[in-house]
Formats: sequence, structure tokens, C-alpha cells
Amino acid sequence: MPDEMQRIVLAKRPEGRPGPENFRLERVAMPRPGEGEVLLRVLWMSLDPYMRGRMDDAKSYATPVKVDEQMGGGAVGEVIESRSDRFAPGDIAMGMFGWASHGVVRAAELRKVDPTIAPVTTSLGVLGMPGFTGWYGFNTIGRPKQGETLVVGAATGPVGSMVGQLARHKGLRAIGVAGGAEKCAFAVEQLGFDACIDHRAAADARALRAALADTCPDGVDIYFENVAGKTLEAVLPLMNVGGRIPICGMVAWYNAGALGGGASDGPDRLPKVWRTILVNRLTVSGFIISDHFDRFGEFLAEVGPLVRAGKIAYREDVTEGLENAPDAFLRMLDGKNFGKTLVKVA
Amino acid sequence: MPDEMQRIVLAKRPEGRPGPENFRLERVAMPRPGEGEVLLRVLWMSLDPYMRGRMDDAKSYATPVKVDEQMGGGAVGEVIESRSDRFAPGDIAMGMFGWASHGVVRAAELRKVDPTIAPVTTSLGVLGMPGFTGWYGFNTIGRPKQGETLVVGAATGPVGSMVGQLARHKGLRAIGVAGGAEKCAFAVEQLGFDACIDHRAAADARALRAALADTCPDGVDIYFENVAGKTLEAVLPLMNVGGRIPICGMVAWYNAGALGGGASDGPDRLPKVWRTILVNRLTVSGFIISDHFDRFGEFLAEVGPLVRAGKIAYREDVTEGLENAPDAFLRMLDGKNFGKTLVKVA
Repeated sequence: MPDEMQRIVLAKRPEGRPGPENFRLERVAMPRPGEGEVLLRVLWMSLDPYMRGRMDDAKSYATPVKVDEQMGGGAVGEVIESRSDRFAPGDIAMGMFGWASHGVVRAAELRKVDPTIAPVTTSLGVLGMPGFTGWYGFNTIGRPKQGETLVVGAATGPVGSMVGQLARHKGLRAIGVAGGAEKCAFAVEQLGFDACIDHRAAADARALRAALADTCPDGVDIYFENVAGKTLEAVLPLMNVGGRIPICGMVAWYNAGALGGGASDGPDRLPKVWRTILVNRLTVSGFIISDHFDRFGEFLAEVGPLVRAGKIAYREDVTEGLENAPDAFLRMLDGKNFGKTLVKVA
Repeated sequence: MPDEMQRIVLAKRPEGRPGPENFRLERVAMPRPGEGEVLLRVLWMSLDPYMRGRMDDAKSYATPVKVDEQMGGGAVGEVIESRSDRFAPGDIAMGMFGWASHGVVRAAELRKVDPTIAPVTTSLGVLGMPGFTGWYGFNTIGRPKQGETLVVGAATGPVGSMVGQLARHKGLRAIGVAGGAEKCAFAVEQLGFDACIDHRAAADARALRAALADTCPDGVDIYFENVAGKTLEAVLPLMNVGGRIPICGMVAWYNAGALGGGASDGPDRLPKVWRTILVNRLTVSGFIISDHFDRFGEFLAEVGPLVRAGKIAYREDVTEGLENAPDAFLRMLDGKNFGKTLVKVA
């Protein structure tokens, strides 16, 4: 066993868009497991948009990362030393190890992953937190009904691709929004979306709305919100009476200075949005998936067999090496990833 | 029976804040009831904020009033001629007669009012559409739980006063917002609010928020939205995780040019509001009470006895004479009414 492990810490808080200067790779002494704990070698690490929020010092649903502390997040690792009778060396498990080569975690906070059922990376994506987020918000807040129309942004990402495919399986019309022709083609051809609109090809929200309106002749019943920005502005006027908007994220605004800090530039869109909620009797609900892990088993029982049977497709965007995690993270925030963003650590 | 009746029509559409020039009093031939119809002499006419929306030509949940057409709305009248076996001359009934001295309505669209149970004006206020709006939104979208805290604006108005009193009866802490010390005193002393904040005494949303925060030591669980503007901005950051926001109106913005037409001035508050909905897992739901009249009987059965027993108080703001309806309406939009705005027509 090596004497040292590697980790990436928050070097300083970003102002607006983060860059490489906000991260620092460190070597620290290899931690050792205490009673009831397990030491793992990280195999795969997850990069997710919510991590951007934790880099800020603003009040949020999760404690911010402190400066000089390790960036947090989910990862899959192999047990190399165990002081719990629930895990043995060689076991594969998912836990919150953060951006690191190794980690010590209490056994109770680990979830064993069976590599014979599906590739272990799926426990960070389609069968992990992002897939669960899509499943929960779609079913619980979206309240889908056959024949309805759903729109979701970041359609080839791990949340959007789950939402769109679940919608198709339930007999809804599923329209994606994604950045670039290649992603849009993938959404339609591989994920089965009825259509996917390239937001980069639309000059502004109005143009994006016109393109969406063409593909949604009966309006929009569910807008699954994970991007906000131009996509929200485009979709909102297309919402049908009684429509539902689950909100799990708003990546377009994470760097915009629009959140947390001062108000953003531009005209005040709030009155119009508030009026649309009233006039169209919309229900807009924010949710944080960590509130709902009591339903994770139900999700796995329903979606696991669909993934194994190839009825739910997914795509991964893999970067090699912990030291490249910051770059991969920044690319993801710019929408340059294509599929679930993962770092192959070991 | 007179040969003519009086009515008020929309003379021209307002740009922003309406004035007397937007209305015109007319005399027209007295209408006569056809088979199954009833002619009524209007006793009391209701003025409500939603009528401002119908003066615009914007898409809304109700068809706009056309220029030169009669202003619509609810009223209570006495039957003076009936061609239905359900009504006899002398009966009192509530219907959508609009701003007029008389009206002909199909008997099926009238609701008989028993003047021995409560004053007939209550069928336009505390036991009519506004009271029902408060009751429905509070119970169905608010999902109140004992011990929670509720905030409602226009606290002495017919919706706000119902919401606050229902909240007190269910064991919630009820905080009102109203314009002026006199209204605030009435809200606490006569309606039983735990506290009422004078928004006119608060220089801006920040000052209003500070005053509200002092009276809501455990945060806010339900914000019943009927005013928007400064009150919304003050309350939103005080919302607790899992909070609910039923939206039935936004009178502060009806004249602001913020709705329907172009975007309003000022920084864009939408990103911050959207983030608050996510971070605090709020549920924001618009509703239009006319969708829910199937539950009106349930409302009357529950609230009627409370009103008769004096356990729910209400206040009326009465103007005499149909010709003074426009003035009374404009005063109400400026928040200068004190209680449910009524016009005594006959």
C-alpha cells in the first residue's frame, strides 16, 4: 500500500466562471480505517453540476466546500482494507469519497456494487444519483400521463437522458434540448427522443421557442428543469394549463453571477414568469434528491432491469487521471461533455 | 318596470394604470328574459382585482372585455321577472351580471341567496368567490400543518382575511401584510392575525423583510400570494424548506407594465427566485378558482357556520351608485379600499 494518496482541494473560491486556478492537486498521508471503517482505492469519480454550487460560500442546501478542503462527490472504489465485517478487500462500493485517489468511509455510508449486473460506472450515472434524480422528479413532481408532451434540457446528460427515455416508455412525447447537432442526433437516434432542438443553433430564446413550438403542436405539459437560462425562457410560454415544472438544477445560471450574488443584468423576467405560473395554473417544485434516498430501492428495482435489457441507453464521457478532473469539470460546466462525466482514477 | 337600464362599458384599453377615461356609463333598453331566463335588478356589485386583467388584450385565463362592451363581474340581484320555474319575483340571487343596474341571466347560471342566513353581500365576499379562493388555495395548495407560519398580503381584503383566519383556526401562526397602520390594527384586533406588517412604513423590500423576519422566528411555511411585488421579494428569502406558495393574484404588478407587455425595468430577479425554489424545495402553484367550483358546496358547508357564529370576521368597503363604480375600482387597485369592495347599486 502506498504511503500517500492524492486529492484535489478548492484552492480559492471562483468569481463567476471557475478556472484551473480554483483547484490544487495535493499529496497527503494515506488514511487508515478505524473500527467500522473501510479504505478504498477510487476507480471512478463522478463530476456533477451541483459541485459548482458548493464552491461558492452562499447559503445552499449543502454545506459549501471550505477553501483548502477536498472537493466532495460520489465515486466508486475497490476495498483495499476493511475494519467492517460488511466489506472484504476486493469488494466494489460506491460512496462519497470526493476528488481523491483513496478514501476512508464508514461502512454504513457505502453501497456495495455488483459488477456482474452492470458496469460499475452506472452506479454514478444511469443507476446512480443522476438517474435517480431524473426518475424521482419525473414521476413524483412531473406526474406524467400518457399522451402528454415533455421537454427536458441537457438531453444527452445523465439526468436528461433518463427523463426523456422514461417519458417515451410511459407513452409521452419527449422533446430534448441539447447543444450541437451531434448531441441532438444521439438523443433522437440512440435515446429515442421524438425530437431534439440544438440550442446553439438558435440565436436567442425566441428562436429556440419557435423551434420547440414546431415540435410540440399540443404544447408542453412537463418541463423538467435542469438547465434554466435560455431554455426556460423558450419553454415557459409553451406550457399548457396544469403543467408541471420539477426543478433539479439550473446549470446555465451557475456561473452567470445571477445566483447567490448580485442581481444579473437585463430586464426583470420575474413578473412575466409569475404571471405564467398563475394564468396557466402551473406547479413549479424544487427538489433535492438527497431528501429522497428512501425511494432509491424502488428506483433500482424499476430502472435496473430496463438498463440491463438495453431499454434505457446511456452515454459516458470519460477523462483519465485524477489530475485532469478540474479540466473535465470545467468542460462539463461549459456543456462540452457528451454524456455522464466520469474520471477514471485508477 | 323602467324602459332603460344603466351599464358601464370599457371605453378604451388602459396603458398601465387605468383612469376614469377608460370607462363610460351608458343607458340601454331594458332587456327581457327569454324562456328559462330571469331578469334581475342589481342590489350589490362586486369589484375585484382580476377585473384589471380583463381590461388588457393579453392572453389570460379569461377572455378580455372588448372595447365598448360591458365590464363583467359578480353581483347580487332581486328577481323582477322570471321565465324559469326555479325563480320567482322577489327572490335574491347571485350571478355574473357585470357592472350594470339590471341583468338577464339563464336560471341555471344563478345561485339563490337566502337573506335570512347571512347578509346577502357575503355571497360576493367572505362566502363568495374571494372567500372560496382563500379557502381553496390555503387548504389544497397550502397544505397547512398545525404550528406552521403563514404570511399573506392584502390581509384585510376578502382573500387575505379569509386565509389568515383559517390559518389561526387551524393552529398556524398567521402574519399579515397590509397598507397602513389602521388596516394592520384591524388585522390583529378584529381578524386575529398574530401580527400585521405595514408595507407602506417599510422603505423597500429589505426593510419589509426585516420586519417580517422579526415576527416569523421560525421562518415561513406558506406564503399565500395575492399581491406579489415588494411583498413577494420580502417573503421569499424567509421561506422554509418544503414551503408552499399558492398564487391567486399579483395586484401589485397589474398596473406595472411588468405583466403581459414588455419587460419591466430593474435587475432580473428570476434567477434568484428560481434558485430559492430549488434550494428550499418550494412548491409554487398558480390556481384559478373558476376551475374548482365543484368544491364550492364543501367550502360553504365548512365556512358558512363559522361566519354565522362570528368566528370569521369580514369587512366591507361600500360605494353607493353604479356611476361611482369606476372610482371605487381605481381606489381598490391603489390599495385604498379597506375590506371587500362593493358597490350598492339599488
